[in-house]
Amino acid sequence: MQIALNELAKLIGLECDSTLVIENLATLKEATPKSLSFFHDAKYIDDLKDTKAAAVILKEEYLDHLPEGVVALVTDEPYKKMALATKLFAYKPSTDTFEPQLGEGSTISENAYCGKGVVIGKNSTIMAGVFLGDGVSIGDNTIIYPNVTIYHGCKVGSNVTIHSGTVIGSDGFGFVSKDHSNTKFYQIGNVVIEDSVEIGANCTIDRATLGSTVIKSNVKLDNLIQIGHNCEIGDYSVIVSQVGLSGSTIVGKGVVIGGQCGTAGHLKIGDRAMLAARTGVTKSLEGGKIYGGFPAVEIKLWRKMQAALMRLVKSSKPKA
Amino acid sequence: MQIALNELAKLIGLECDSTLVIENLATLKEATPKSLSFFHDAKYIDDLKDTKAAAVILKEEYLDHLPEGVVALVTDEPYKKMALATKLFAYKPSTDTFEPQLGEGSTISENAYCGKGVVIGKNSTIMAGVFLGDGVSIGDNTIIYPNVTIYHGCKVGSNVTIHSGTVIGSDGFGFVSKDHSNTKFYQIGNVVIEDSVEIGANCTIDRATLGSTVIKSNVKLDNLIQIGHNCEIGDYSVIVSQVGLSGSTIVGKGVVIGGQCGTAGHLKIGDRAMLAARTGVTKSLEGGKIYGGFPAVEIKLWRKMQAALMRLVKSSKPKA
Amino acid sequence: MQIALNELAKLIGLECDSTLVIENLATLKEATPKSLSFFHDAKYIDDLKDTKAAAVILKEEYLDHLPEGVVALVTDEPYKKMALATKLFAYKPSTDTFEPQLGEGSTISENAYCGKGVVIGKNSTIMAGVFLGDGVSIGDNTIIYPNVTIYHGCKVGSNVTIHSGTVIGSDGFGFVSKDHSNTKFYQIGNVVIEDSVEIGANCTIDRATLGSTVIKSNVKLDNLIQIGHNCEIGDYSVIVSQVGLSGSTIVGKGVVIGGQCGTAGHLKIGDRAMLAARTGVTKSLEGGKIYGGFPAVEIKLWRKMQAALMRLVKSSKPKA
Repeated sequence: MQIALNELAKLIGLECDSTLVIENLATLKEATPKSLSFFHDAKYIDDLKDTKAAAVILKEEYLDHLPEGVVALVTDEPYKKMALATKLFAYKPSTDTFEPQLGEGSTISENAYCGKGVVIGKNSTIMAGVFLGDGVSIGDNTIIYPNVTIYHGCKVGSNVTIHSGTVIGSDGFGFVSKDHSNTKFYQIGNVVIEDSVEIGANCTIDRATLGSTVIKSNVKLDNLIQIGHNCEIGDYSVIVSQVGLSGSTIVGKGVVIGGQCGTAGHLKIGDRAMLAARTGVTKSLEGGKIYGGFPAVEIKLWRKMQAALMRLVKSSKPKA
Repeated sequence: MQIALNELAKLIGLECDSTLVIENLATLKEATPKSLSFFHDAKYIDDLKDTKAAAVILKEEYLDHLPEGVVALVTDEPYKKMALATKLFAYKPSTDTFEPQLGEGSTISENAYCGKGVVIGKNSTIMAGVFLGDGVSIGDNTIIYPNVTIYHGCKVGSNVTIHSGTVIGSDGFGFVSKDHSNTKFYQIGNVVIEDSVEIGANCTIDRATLGSTVIKSNVKLDNLIQIGHNCEIGDYSVIVSQVGLSGSTIVGKGVVIGGQCGTAGHLKIGDRAMLAARTGVTKSLEGGKIYGGFPAVEIKLWRKMQAALMRLVKSSKPKA
Repeated sequence: MQIALNELAKLIGLECDSTLVIENLATLKEATPKSLSFFHDAKYIDDLKDTKAAAVILKEEYLDHLPEGVVALVTDEPYKKMALATKLFAYKPSTDTFEPQLGEGSTISENAYCGKGVVIGKNSTIMAGVFLGDGVSIGDNTIIYPNVTIYHGCKVGSNVTIHSGTVIGSDGFGFVSKDHSNTKFYQIGNVVIEDSVEIGANCTIDRATLGSTVIKSNVKLDNLIQIGHNCEIGDYSVIVSQVGLSGSTIVGKGVVIGGQCGTAGHLKIGDRAMLAARTGVTKSLEGGKIYGGFPAVEIKLWRKMQAALMRLVKSSKPKA
């Protein structure tokens, strides 16, 4: 997609006289001179100062931080205006199916369906009921079990196993809620699954809003896990069943997350941290420690809290 | 289905000499003069007094509350007897597939499968691996992503998006458990999804026991959410991943429910209430407030409870 | 698969001069004279003393407990070595599809796919998008709704209903994590679903590591439930939505488990126990009682803990 900036601005209700050509939407950090970006959260101010974007949607008060030569699209609602822009770049799903490009030794069930430009490496197995969207790539020695869905543009590495019913690349949950309306922020990014990852059954891994949701090499995911948009799971990490990671959760290397844990979004879990089952993470956690409880604390403290509560009950028994 | 009341009564082990024709099963409130209904919970006593049903299964002690002209089927186990009646009206799944009635501009993958009498509006897209059961209707501009299942009789509006792996209209969880048996209460109702709803991946929305489970317009659901039978989600409400709503939860308008929350059944959440992640709702909540914790309380109180527990641990440290 | 013990030992980096033929891998308890087994957890010492295995992988210090005539494969890492052995016996997925053997009155959608040697009983219904792996058997009067996946070797009884999107027989979550590597313990077992079971939508029931994961007769499972490898659910038990049972959880008869509960692995829940919604079970529970909270305690105690905490907040209010 190519669109002149002035034309794009008009379509989202803004004004701009630049005729620069925009080819994609991107975060401030990942933007190129062909990108439109946006600034809506003060914590990304450094990204604003360094952006290579052609243009940025932002509030007037931040104009001074914009690098020289970058075009400003000024508005009081940068997030909502960017949401409107995403609609212009949104993927249009198609029901057409095509033959994939299949590497030596690979087999694909005649009852699996591929979009346009699907590429499968060597010695991989794609079973019945699998759907691979437009432009999906699959590496070597990878097994995709029945009824898995991989949306357009997602990348799966080599020696990967994905169990049945798992959905890779569905839309991240992004809506601008205001005055009784929920405006969709179309999800332009994708999911990248690196080598030697195993993903259990009926998981959901959302595509990134912009950029990529990344599952790094050797990560092992159990069943029914939710990975939000723009999450990043570090190498060798292990996540047990029914965990939910909110958008932009960054998990380090060698982290172990017990069953039914959850995280609030936009936080980091340090390398080799361990989370006991059902831990609820509300802020970033240092690596190398063991956590439990909700809100998450070091597990020793959580155990003391439980013990203190038990003593309290016993000491107050006479009153009951 | 049409059956004479005396014949129906015999099949469920009751006696009755009326030959009125019964055409459907319904709640006391929704019943018509062609309906059989039942009364098993004292809180619906007003519905009993006003019912338009042809006949009601109930205990002898409530006979006086039955409107004149409504036939009584008397038993000590009204819930179990109604469960037996549901079996007579239960849907029989079929493996036959048919061509849907397809509106202008709509496309359906040749690898999607439809039951009898499926109607799809204009400019909608039905992708591979989707199953639309007998009598399903889909509105205009709606996208159904791969491997979604929509059971018989469910209604989906216009401008709706449903992501992969989601199941609409599976049976509500209804069993009459007694003496080492679990008698199925067949689920006769359906699911109605109104306009501009978006539903994430791998959600499950159960059909109503009788009547409809309703997702009202502009509701946005994230991934892996469970919506029980007969729930109603009000306009513009937003529900985050891994939430579970038990049967007959009534959610108001503009409600926001954080990730991994759960509700006990048969309760109401008022308009514009907000539930922090992981809130466990055990009774109805007033609208316009913010809640947290389990059992749910106003979030300020929940934070004080956490702080009090932390102080308790610190003050008791010397003993440890 | 048949392999001489000395050859097998070599492939997993051990030494052994026995030429006994090994035909399968098994737990110490289920092993036959054609089995290789392993001993890695002191609590199974009695099983070691009584095993009928041809050979056992174990640490040197336990050699004295090995029954006479059983071959020892000695190592410091019995679990990891057994994991390597499982790879030799692992199932190789195939994309070939075959006609099933179909009993009288049964129908299978032309859009359902079967592996080799699938046997379906009488009057059963297999709907579109269902995948039945090699060697799967289905009993009489069973309904498999669209887009269910049943992996190779799993057994489903009669009068069973399985709702859409459910996955039966995906791999149990078994990895040997050490030094930045996660070695897969291939899952050799299967899942057995007995008669009159109903399973909701989008559940995941993992195959056993060795042996079987068993869902006994008349069990009712709601939606989005995770059942780990080697679990056993006793007759008539009822499990509500979004529950997660870790590997080797043994649930008794007539147990009721509320929504969003979770269990740590390798524990037992006694007959007719009831777990309130969201209970987190960390150790075995006696039957016939009602539990709540996390860690699970008798529900009366849990309610007292909540009340005590509330009193604490109120009494400390002036300080706030």
